[in-house]
Amino acid sequence: MKISVLTFLVLLNYQLLSGQSEVHKQQIKKIFHQALTNGKSYDWLDHLSNQIGGRLSGSLNAERAVIWGNQQLNEMGLDKVYLEDIMVPKWVRGTFEYASIITGPGMSMNVPVCALGGSVATPAAGLRAKVVEVKNFSELEVLGEEKIRGKFVFYNRPMPPDLINTFEAYKKTVDQRSNGASKAARLGAVGVIVRSMNLRMDDYPHTGNMRYGNLPNKMRIPASAISTNGAQLLSSMLSLNKDLYFYLKQDCKNYPDVPSHNVIGEIKGNEFPEEIILVGGHLDSWDLGDGAHDDGAGIVQSMEVLNLFKQMNYQPKRTIRVVLYMNEENGLRGGITYAENTKRKNENHIFALESDAGGFSPRGFAFEANEKQFKKIKSWKTYFEPYMIDHFTLGESGSDIGPLKNGKIVLSGLRPDSQRYFDYHHSANDTFEAINKRELELGAAAMTSLIYIVDQYGF
Amino acid sequence: MKISVLTFLVLLNYQLLSGQSEVHKQQIKKIFHQALTNGKSYDWLDHLSNQIGGRLSGSLNAERAVIWGNQQLNEMGLDKVYLEDIMVPKWVRGTFEYASIITGPGMSMNVPVCALGGSVATPAAGLRAKVVEVKNFSELEVLGEEKIRGKFVFYNRPMPPDLINTFEAYKKTVDQRSNGASKAARLGAVGVIVRSMNLRMDDYPHTGNMRYGNLPNKMRIPASAISTNGAQLLSSMLSLNKDLYFYLKQDCKNYPDVPSHNVIGEIKGNEFPEEIILVGGHLDSWDLGDGAHDDGAGIVQSMEVLNLFKQMNYQPKRTIRVVLYMNEENGLRGGITYAENTKRKNENHIFALESDAGGFSPRGFAFEANEKQFKKIKSWKTYFEPYMIDHFTLGESGSDIGPLKNGKIVLSGLRPDSQRYFDYHHSANDTFEAINKRELELGAAAMTSLIYIVDQYGF
Repeated sequence: MKISVLTFLVLLNYQLLSGQSEVHKQQIKKIFHQALTNGKSYDWLDHLSNQIGGRLSGSLNAERAVIWGNQQLNEMGLDKVYLEDIMVPKWVRGTFEYASIITGPGMSMNVPVCALGGSVATPAAGLRAKVVEVKNFSELEVLGEEKIRGKFVFYNRPMPPDLINTFEAYKKTVDQRSNGASKAARLGAVGVIVRSMNLRMDDYPHTGNMRYGNLPNKMRIPASAISTNGAQLLSSMLSLNKDLYFYLKQDCKNYPDVPSHNVIGEIKGNEFPEEIILVGGHLDSWDLGDGAHDDGAGIVQSMEVLNLFKQMNYQPKRTIRVVLYMNEENGLRGGITYAENTKRKNENHIFALESDAGGFSPRGFAFEANEKQFKKIKSWKTYFEPYMIDHFTLGESGSDIGPLKNGKIVLSGLRPDSQRYFDYHHSANDTFEAINKRELELGAAAMTSLIYIVDQYGF
Repeated sequence: MKISVLTFLVLLNYQLLSGQSEVHKQQIKKIFHQALTNGKSYDWLDHLSNQIGGRLSGSLNAERAVIWGNQQLNEMGLDKVYLEDIMVPKWVRGTFEYASIITGPGMSMNVPVCALGGSVATPAAGLRAKVVEVKNFSELEVLGEEKIRGKFVFYNRPMPPDLINTFEAYKKTVDQRSNGASKAARLGAVGVIVRSMNLRMDDYPHTGNMRYGNLPNKMRIPASAISTNGAQLLSSMLSLNKDLYFYLKQDCKNYPDVPSHNVIGEIKGNEFPEEIILVGGHLDSWDLGDGAHDDGAGIVQSMEVLNLFKQMNYQPKRTIRVVLYMNEENGLRGGITYAENTKRKNENHIFALESDAGGFSPRGFAFEANEKQFKKIKSWKTYFEPYMIDHFTLGESGSDIGPLKNGKIVLSGLRPDSQRYFDYHHSANDTFEAINKRELELGAAAMTSLIYIVDQYGF
């Protein structure tokens, strides 16, 4: 039999490629084995959640988290660990928040509320006013100043339950929380009550950021979230008596910016050290729970990527950098500052991966990439099929890495199962107990595998 | 332009097919919408779990579940609802179970245990003996009667954590529970202690069925499950002192078989009424928790299939039958009897779907089908992709429907995310609180959609 030189070369190339792909399969198998049998993510999260706890930007706890993150990265024996200076907003919830529905003299029912992040306080004696319920801003505009002035506006549009991706349901309702106060204030409202962004009916109010935009200081009104059960109660009470009163008292406060830090560590690449592959999450959280899902999980999974490489003695070709971002929740200062500095230093990031969608069972990744890049990415799906983490889609990656976007870098976000995320998001029940060890570890293994493949193939 | 007759027919057929497929897509969208906004599964499960509770075959609670299931199916307005008589084993846990590790006079530590289903009791005063720890039956055989006689055998092989599908990890360890006692008894052991089939380290012992096989009655020894934390404690105590004593006391008992029932309901098909499409789960559970995941979830999801069809005024072409099987856990009498009767009656089942893998976020279906059938099934994947329930694999379907296998019928099992299943399986923490409403409803919607598609296309 005669084999032409061309055929020979094609066969050789095929042999080499399939041999290479077999090596990668084995390496990924080792990564999953290591993460599930000897990973550190769960113990790290236990410490971050239970020994440190909620860590809102600007708080002492956030600084304790910075010190802890810095220590852990140093103990890992990375090539370089450093802090990046940033200035962050400082908002403090204060010592009380309290609300009730008053239907007559001596007839009041307490309802669970919490101040929205960034909100001003009520007067010290609290606010007592009638309530106008709306589902959206159009309804608000139709009612107009005449019907709104002097009252609370109660935004009560539920997250649509029939969207499969709960983040889409969130996007369809979060405008009430973000901009509801400024819209209502311009029509003379005295305060806003916002239905919690939660798909469950329960008693937890969910906080989150709100903005007054360019609304003058003296026009700013207090904004508070009410639990889903509380919202349903208030709505049904209003349907019986539209003249009832709502009472709200909260003493949260905005302070001037304070210094804080992104925490950064890296393993230097030995072939293309100038090509940076970034993995990260955000170290800050809201103050109500201990931020185990949002985003303690993303922090410890990102740290685990470098930890597994060290444990497995894997020497990357490219520089693998972990960034524990500060201040995703109420300012994104960490993400913005990091991107500015990296541009100034002329650093070349080829890929960035964020985990900020909870520590649930991973189902795939979303990518911000051009057609050619995404074609290459899809060819890697086969590596992830044995782990059922093979839903590769085009879509938003993550807030912190967003500012790195420059038309060349590929951005990606881990996509865990989203069904339970908003049960916990920004709420007092976002605690370590809501984390399943295996699910957390599978996410870390998936991230490590993707970073490994990007390191091997590049873009 | 001239179009040949053939081209015309091909195009027409394509138009019809794609129109048909669009209709199916819309129908499935409606099913998901209905399940997520107006489904009954969660409320049903609340009742079954919290008002009825654990329902071991042969118990009064199991009969309360039969009455409840019968009532619910009747209220649904089905074409036919009936009970199928079966005889089931009756095993009763008794009033106490108790164990401790004794390392010296006055030095004992209690450990959490529970009797395995089918086990005999200890003597009334309990059993006190030394312990031999083994990982598998080979180690047991090597030790032999000399080292085993008069002692407890402690089976301590953990579920392997690095298998992605936790059911595979279960299969690799459950022989200790099923056959450990009979193997150890033949070598003169006085009792067995089995590490719980659980991937978490916690304090819950997990029960489950065990068999003595043809071991003579007088040789039967008590078998007990110990929590994973308890197993680790016992193992490390043994490594310090191999002569320590273990004390076990349990007063469980086997009784003669008692009558019980499968609960069956159906909607008659209007085109091919003789073709039966079955959907089901098992109504019985273990006695420790309330059996919300195993298999309350499967029961209410199966009922929901017919309920959604009724709510949506969908008239199936084929007969859709729901079977609430009795006695999956310790005998499979419901599944066996149903299959025998259906054969006797010469009924034609074309498809059977079981949900018995927990009420978690659904990820796909497993099928027992021949090549031609599976090719057809895979062509339906596109309908399930928008819901991320598109992992279609060949594999085991479900225990209850297994006896229907005849070389023609296609069997299928819903495959939810498996990571958390064995945290709850057969344990006191398998309760309604461990169920997420959306995850349960998505499973019901997925099942309804698959049954709808099989009804439309047939086999």
